[in-house]
Amino acid sequence: MQTEGIVLASRPAGMPSAENFRFEAVSLPELQEGQVLIRTTYISVDPYMRGRMSDRKSYIAPFTVGEVITGGAVGIVAASKSKHLQAGDTVTGDWGWQRHAVCRDKQVRKVDERYATAALGVLGMPGLTAYFGLLDICQPQKGETVVVSGAAGAVGMTVGQIAKIKGARTVGIAGSDEKLAYLRDELGFDAVVNYRSDQLKDELKAACPNGVDAYFDNVGGTLSDLVMRLINKHARISICGQIASYNLEKADVGPRVQTPLLMKSAMMKGFIVSDYAPRFKEGAAQLTQWVQEGRIKYREHMVEGFERTPEAFLGLFKGENTGKLLVKISE
Amino acid sequence: MQTEGIVLASRPAGMPSAENFRFEAVSLPELQEGQVLIRTTYISVDPYMRGRMSDRKSYIAPFTVGEVITGGAVGIVAASKSKHLQAGDTVTGDWGWQRHAVCRDKQVRKVDERYATAALGVLGMPGLTAYFGLLDICQPQKGETVVVSGAAGAVGMTVGQIAKIKGARTVGIAGSDEKLAYLRDELGFDAVVNYRSDQLKDELKAACPNGVDAYFDNVGGTLSDLVMRLINKHARISICGQIASYNLEKADVGPRVQTPLLMKSAMMKGFIVSDYAPRFKEGAAQLTQWVQEGRIKYREHMVEGFERTPEAFLGLFKGENTGKLLVKISE
Repeated sequence: MQTEGIVLASRPAGMPSAENFRFEAVSLPELQEGQVLIRTTYISVDPYMRGRMSDRKSYIAPFTVGEVITGGAVGIVAASKSKHLQAGDTVTGDWGWQRHAVCRDKQVRKVDERYATAALGVLGMPGLTAYFGLLDICQPQKGETVVVSGAAGAVGMTVGQIAKIKGARTVGIAGSDEKLAYLRDELGFDAVVNYRSDQLKDELKAACPNGVDAYFDNVGGTLSDLVMRLINKHARISICGQIASYNLEKADVGPRVQTPLLMKSAMMKGFIVSDYAPRFKEGAAQLTQWVQEGRIKYREHMVEGFERTPEAFLGLFKGENTGKLLVKISE
Repeated sequence: MQTEGIVLASRPAGMPSAENFRFEAVSLPELQEGQVLIRTTYISVDPYMRGRMSDRKSYIAPFTVGEVITGGAVGIVAASKSKHLQAGDTVTGDWGWQRHAVCRDKQVRKVDERYATAALGVLGMPGLTAYFGLLDICQPQKGETVVVSGAAGAVGMTVGQIAKIKGARTVGIAGSDEKLAYLRDELGFDAVVNYRSDQLKDELKAACPNGVDAYFDNVGGTLSDLVMRLINKHARISICGQIASYNLEKADVGPRVQTPLLMKSAMMKGFIVSDYAPRFKEGAAQLTQWVQEGRIKYREHMVEGFERTPEAFLGLFKGENTGKLLVKISE
């Protein structure tokens, strides 16, 4: 069977562009015992995927030029040679950016079709990233100030809401008035700051009158340099992403953080969600409960059409999305 | 009674010099109930004191221009109006850089005269700094590689020996062949690196063939930038000092560490020894035992004469000392 896929045509230097992608016919292998044929319904585009487009050493293997790009996806089983899955089941997993895929049944996970897209967001990798990166590293306490950058993204908005559940004062940083209004008015962030403001330093300070006890950083760069100037004694900084650096062509240089960490007995820790794999069940159960109780809301930014997948991905780096950025491939 | 003291004459811009200090006659107050008159025998000069010479915000209040500089010292009680201390007792505490001082008995601690100078080093603030900064933050495990910068200083050499006790492979970085030989041959460091080498990057790499699991950083600057390139997954970095930055007149800029921390799920934490005050007894007891068992050796770099105290302090920033730098004031 033939399907259509998107391959990495070339590695980007700096900001990726449409030219780094190519649409190609892909031959699917014959279905084997234990495998399913999946019709892709949604593709997830995520900032971490930028790292895989380069060939430098990172925490995940790079994509191969000329091969189909892989990432989180949801689909419906079209044909099954698995004992565990049957045609019509909704499943999620990591497979190619292609309209159809053949996967081993163990590589995918059946999900409630009502939460099909949430499986790629608040109940999936981004939600678990928020849950563990905030609770394990930032350890927000009642009354503390928690700052989150990239607050209008899938991870950031979940972080802010969990921090609120834990009783912290939550400050969200994002890049448009629409996003800020959403965070403040819909999600209950206590204060919001636009990182594009030319009074950013003063606005951050005003938003954190008691300093910063915990910082969940999705962004890095000069924004984070400013946040670091506001940290309190014993602050915890969770490094989840550094989207400001992903497309840099030269070394990422800035004020060294060692001195503020020393002066404040503060801690900074990087992580990747898979560090917490043994606790995924716990995290997913808690997130599901909070979503069902209405204590965590989520929002999806849906782009329609397989052909727009690269464009959707590129939008991540322009701050186009509020909430989880998804591409709808089929019904 | 009159004595002689050393006051902060002016605040240094950049590297301090002899001109920032002034010798002055100091009038001691009449001895009150609960106080002791102490004849200073040893003064401790420590890198952290550089921070107190500036008036920028730090973790300890700055020295006041025109007032006597205070720091760790050891002395002998010359006269006592305390129920707890008597003439002839050896005591340690923080008091002025002066030949005699009047202190409240609670401000000082009686020490075994055989360990009079050790009370300022391996059994005092530097030893406790090494103990808690290494064991609590770096948490060295058997077979891991632990790197320590400033390894020939009072803190660094204790760190290396504790790491060895814990079964780690220990790599010391210092600035002279004499120091390196001492660390390797006398203290049992597994590998040593001279940070002044023009092959520093390659030598560091060769000294850490399995990468770096823990880094105890007394130095900062470009040396630490190189160490950060070698960290392993789940590395722990303890920020104890940043002597390379203390005398900088411009912003301390370098490669941002967030990306390596992220790529390696690594953790960096600053601290000051007083964070661990509730556990000082535990630390001091363990260090005393290790010293008595001969498992931790220490070395003192003794400068003779009160008048040489500023010169001794300035020597810290030239890397002149191997081991604890002390000034002997009187017998």
